[in-house]
Amino acid sequence: MYIPKHFKVSDIEEIRDFIQHNSFGTLITTRKGKPIATHLPLQLVKKEDAYYVTGHMAYGNPQWRTFEEAETVLATFQGPHAYISSSWYEQENVPTWNYQAVHLYGPARLLSGEELKQDLSMLLEKYEKHREEPVLWDKLSSSMLEKELKGIVGFQIEIQEIQAAYKLSQNRNDKDYVNIIEQLHNEENPDSERMADVMASKVRSDTD
Amino acid sequence: MYIPKHFKVSDIEEIRDFIQHNSFGTLITTRKGKPIATHLPLQLVKKEDAYYVTGHMAYGNPQWRTFEEAETVLATFQGPHAYISSSWYEQENVPTWNYQAVHLYGPARLLSGEELKQDLSMLLEKYEKHREEPVLWDKLSSSMLEKELKGIVGFQIEIQEIQAAYKLSQNRNDKDYVNIIEQLHNEENPDSERMADVMASKVRSDTD
Repeated sequence: MYIPKHFKVSDIEEIRDFIQHNSFGTLITTRKGKPIATHLPLQLVKKEDAYYVTGHMAYGNPQWRTFEEAETVLATFQGPHAYISSSWYEQENVPTWNYQAVHLYGPARLLSGEELKQDLSMLLEKYEKHREEPVLWDKLSSSMLEKELKGIVGFQIEIQEIQAAYKLSQNRNDKDYVNIIEQLHNEENPDSERMADVMASKVRSDTD
Repeated sequence: MYIPKHFKVSDIEEIRDFIQHNSFGTLITTRKGKPIATHLPLQLVKKEDAYYVTGHMAYGNPQWRTFEEAETVLATFQGPHAYISSSWYEQENVPTWNYQAVHLYGPARLLSGEELKQDLSMLLEKYEKHREEPVLWDKLSSSMLEKELKGIVGFQIEIQEIQAAYKLSQNRNDKDYVNIIEQLHNEENPDSERMADVMASKVRSDTD
């Protein structure tokens, strides 16, 4: 991903936190040069000093069969994004689009049955634990799980390259920056609202 | 994209409308088998009986140099997405993730200077026309535009393949479907809220 220096993020804890909160990603591989993409909930896992992206897809999805021919696959994660009108700047300029994105690259392999069960159990913990009646692994009947497990394939990407871009008007002066946040709130669009919140949180953390 | 039959969308007008409202897409190409992705506002344009995706990127972004070696590139568009807890179903089942995605494939070429100007002018119309003080093409100074135009590259993808998936719990019974919408509203998450709205609109259009 092309990332001008203003927008580059290299703090790995920030990147982990971003993926934790924007974990519905896209897995991209290629077959004979043609890109193939699947939209999936993914997890970023740290084991010793290495990072891995894990996930699962339908057995019927032919994408997992492309892992073998690929030296590297790509997992992308996107946060909120919003149109930024040039009318929100003091000086004349062109409009743009703000966004947050993280791209992770590495070789992929399939998970064993036991590894897949552990990964799914972690996934349930993440999305169910806080609920009033959480449906965790142990609550699901083994007959149903056995059937479901036959229909999916688990995979793991060993991360060898991380690219992270936060395009949040960091290259604008303070007055423009504050005005952009205000104008985003006025857009009456959930994505613009979320972008305003992200930009506002960055102001706060800079002045802490 | 692997699309089970419940989730497949083939109505081209529906797909055009989806892209019109979810136009911040991802352009995916490959270099020597490695996928490269850029997040960009894109437009779907119909000319006679053919469809084209148009857009532009920074001249400094090396991705446009991969167009020549690629037989086909991929433009993806994503709508709202949300976790669906299995506790929202009457019958025991596993959780899932609902989403909307459109993938468009075809060969890409660079736009001429004149084509790029037309495309940018259309883009400004789309995002500025409804504003109180719209900044349209004619309002921008030519000296600024000339400078900005030197920093970007326009491109066009001739669409040869369309894949569209709406994974919206269409495979659930009416009681589950209505309950999922209600539970999504309770999630206090803007993406879940948007997914609830999309699902509710589909119920309405079915009963029209």
